[in-house]
Amino acid sequence: MSLIVAKFGGTSVATTDRIKNVAQRLVRMKNEGNQVVAVVSAMGKTTDDLVSMCEALNPNPPAREMDRLLSTGEQVSMTLLAMAIEALGVHAMSFTGRQAGIQTDGIHEKAKIVSVDNERIMKCIHDDGIAVVAGFQGIDHNGDITTLGRGGSDTTAVAVAYGLGADECQIFSDVVGVYTADPRVCPHAHKLDEISYDDMLELSAAGSGVLQMRAVEFARKYNVVIHSRSAFSEEPGTLVKETTMEKSVITGIAHDTSEVKVTVRGVPDITGVAGRLFQVLSASNVSVDMIIQGTAADGLADISFTCPAKDVATAKAALDELLPELGAQEVYVNENIAKVSLVGTGMKSSPGVAAKAFSTLAEHEISILAISTSPIRLSVVVGKDECAKAVQCLHTAFGMDVEEIFEENALSPEEVEAKKNKGR
Amino acid sequence: MSLIVAKFGGTSVATTDRIKNVAQRLVRMKNEGNQVVAVVSAMGKTTDDLVSMCEALNPNPPAREMDRLLSTGEQVSMTLLAMAIEALGVHAMSFTGRQAGIQTDGIHEKAKIVSVDNERIMKCIHDDGIAVVAGFQGIDHNGDITTLGRGGSDTTAVAVAYGLGADECQIFSDVVGVYTADPRVCPHAHKLDEISYDDMLELSAAGSGVLQMRAVEFARKYNVVIHSRSAFSEEPGTLVKETTMEKSVITGIAHDTSEVKVTVRGVPDITGVAGRLFQVLSASNVSVDMIIQGTAADGLADISFTCPAKDVATAKAALDELLPELGAQEVYVNENIAKVSLVGTGMKSSPGVAAKAFSTLAEHEISILAISTSPIRLSVVVGKDECAKAVQCLHTAFGMDVEEIFEENALSPEEVEAKKNKGR
Repeated sequence: MSLIVAKFGGTSVATTDRIKNVAQRLVRMKNEGNQVVAVVSAMGKTTDDLVSMCEALNPNPPAREMDRLLSTGEQVSMTLLAMAIEALGVHAMSFTGRQAGIQTDGIHEKAKIVSVDNERIMKCIHDDGIAVVAGFQGIDHNGDITTLGRGGSDTTAVAVAYGLGADECQIFSDVVGVYTADPRVCPHAHKLDEISYDDMLELSAAGSGVLQMRAVEFARKYNVVIHSRSAFSEEPGTLVKETTMEKSVITGIAHDTSEVKVTVRGVPDITGVAGRLFQVLSASNVSVDMIIQGTAADGLADISFTCPAKDVATAKAALDELLPELGAQEVYVNENIAKVSLVGTGMKSSPGVAAKAFSTLAEHEISILAISTSPIRLSVVVGKDECAKAVQCLHTAFGMDVEEIFEENALSPEEVEAKKNKGR
Repeated sequence: MSLIVAKFGGTSVATTDRIKNVAQRLVRMKNEGNQVVAVVSAMGKTTDDLVSMCEALNPNPPAREMDRLLSTGEQVSMTLLAMAIEALGVHAMSFTGRQAGIQTDGIHEKAKIVSVDNERIMKCIHDDGIAVVAGFQGIDHNGDITTLGRGGSDTTAVAVAYGLGADECQIFSDVVGVYTADPRVCPHAHKLDEISYDDMLELSAAGSGVLQMRAVEFARKYNVVIHSRSAFSEEPGTLVKETTMEKSVITGIAHDTSEVKVTVRGVPDITGVAGRLFQVLSASNVSVDMIIQGTAADGLADISFTCPAKDVATAKAALDELLPELGAQEVYVNENIAKVSLVGTGMKSSPGVAAKAFSTLAEHEISILAISTSPIRLSVVVGKDECAKAVQCLHTAFGMDVEEIFEENALSPEEVEAKKNKGR
């Protein structure tokens, strides 16, 4: 008998018919002799609807209220799923973040899990029931509802799996697993049977929407095996775990079109200026990704960084206010960028990856706007309209192409992004 | 400085524009020097939408899940209202039933408030804020969310007002106050400036949708003054309180088309049979209203009762199962009925009300299907299609008509009922 935590995202529970399907799948899992705990996101577009009502009322809503508002989405989907399971004759109970004992810090909209107390969930599965847990939410020390930010439901699933000592944390989505590249952009991509936490983490950080980075980080820290698989097929997906197999140089390619590049021009080249700049951004909760500092001319430098498009208004406001203090000239935003990242643990022991990547892009006349590296990742920023071409030529150059072509036609990066941003 | 609890129903917060209006009204109330606590219902049709999704999944959902599901409606409206108030520059915080300290018993879907702990609400208003409390919900001793059933939000408002020692509990709806009869059915009805708890209670019990009976009961018990008024005008409404003024014989007429009449035919005339019958109905949580026992012929009697239409399936199932034990013949349901009730504390000291009512109905050729009385109420059951005529002729006969005619055209009882049943 295995204990399985199964997480279903918003697309999988978007309609009552799909909720029925999920219920049937969970009941089948249980009838095969497993103990089952489900974690769910909000139904389809619920979150968007709530956000748009909120925007009509207050462009800067108090974070505490926003969290409470958004947390209702999962409360609806979890109760409906529990009802659907009961309708199949199997005992089920739903649990809010509070009832599932998911204690977080007090940072609204981006809370971090600090502890999990699974007492009520354990009782439910020992009573031969399926426990259904609301993803994305917890409570802080004041008893106020917090939400975990994007990817929160995946993180809830991994945290609950860890707390319960589950054998596997299955994360269901609308893709079959982790691919060498997004098959909607790169038709020759193929599915990986397994991937290491490190590679998965870099792919997630670099924009692969399959699994959320925080969830993978959590899984790595506590050694929870994640099984990324499709909600719409029985096919096995990709296992994310501590892997000992021989590493290929490059495991996969991720791309990300959700960031923008912000440049602060004419910054005096004085010690501490960059520190002050990023301190202010951090205080404004802007997630800075890549940082590029240009060479100083006349004692003036350009400092560029990339950040999520959603943070750009905050970033710009904070920096505009800071310009006089820094003695800098202006803040410039370029929204037409994409980041393409090569990821592979094997990269550490294989010199020449950067050289090969740059020459491949040059051959295809793709300009590189910025570069950033880690021991197992190489990211380049290119124009948004060249994103698909860059992914495809790098995928070919690093020998990852397969013969068969993914059945969906390749989508534009924007369509892919739109699909990706639906989930939490 | 007065402390005012202001309750707004689902119609008043049905859209973001209406939520803005409510926010403005609350801020105005506060700027006039009052401390303000708002209690809200779910937005417009939210509850119906949730119920219909639930019905698609499970015709008999577990009550615990149902309560959790429905409670999300108020969590959405309360957070949106708090955001709208903040947008006007006034501090506001929303509180779930749990956070507002509304402790109930464990009867899901029909929970009763057992205690209120206003600590967090008090802190919010002492911090110069407007507290926004979710109506309709509380928590039981297990920490599970309970809902208070129909009229729950009014009850929440009165309970919170009592707990805070509020000066007034204003209950806003889409009518201007309490009328001598429903002005949509009886165009010559007029608004009452004040009404006693007893009269209000009987009117509510008899189907007046303006205030919910449980809320009035609670208010009477703890002497909370209710001010029933319109969300769409500044006009004062009706005060419900301990009144010492001279009583008119009849205060008002209520009607109710939401009940059905159930008849158990051929019940053996044995001691204890009726007791057993109503014991079973009570165990099934059927709210029995009027009871009519026919004369026994051949040792067999008919026992009829009225109950809410929503309980009729439960009632019929329970009684069908009981027929063999009782030795009774069959269960018959008549859905085409309406109850019309004359209410007035003055009735106690005025004989002849019944005689006058019966002769008035007879003059208008309206058949009486059943009669029930209390010291201050006389109810008759008539055919549903004769309901409006019965209300109108009794209103005239007891001298309550006014010259001016209520501006809305008279609606059919079904339309009125549909309007009435929207709210909680």
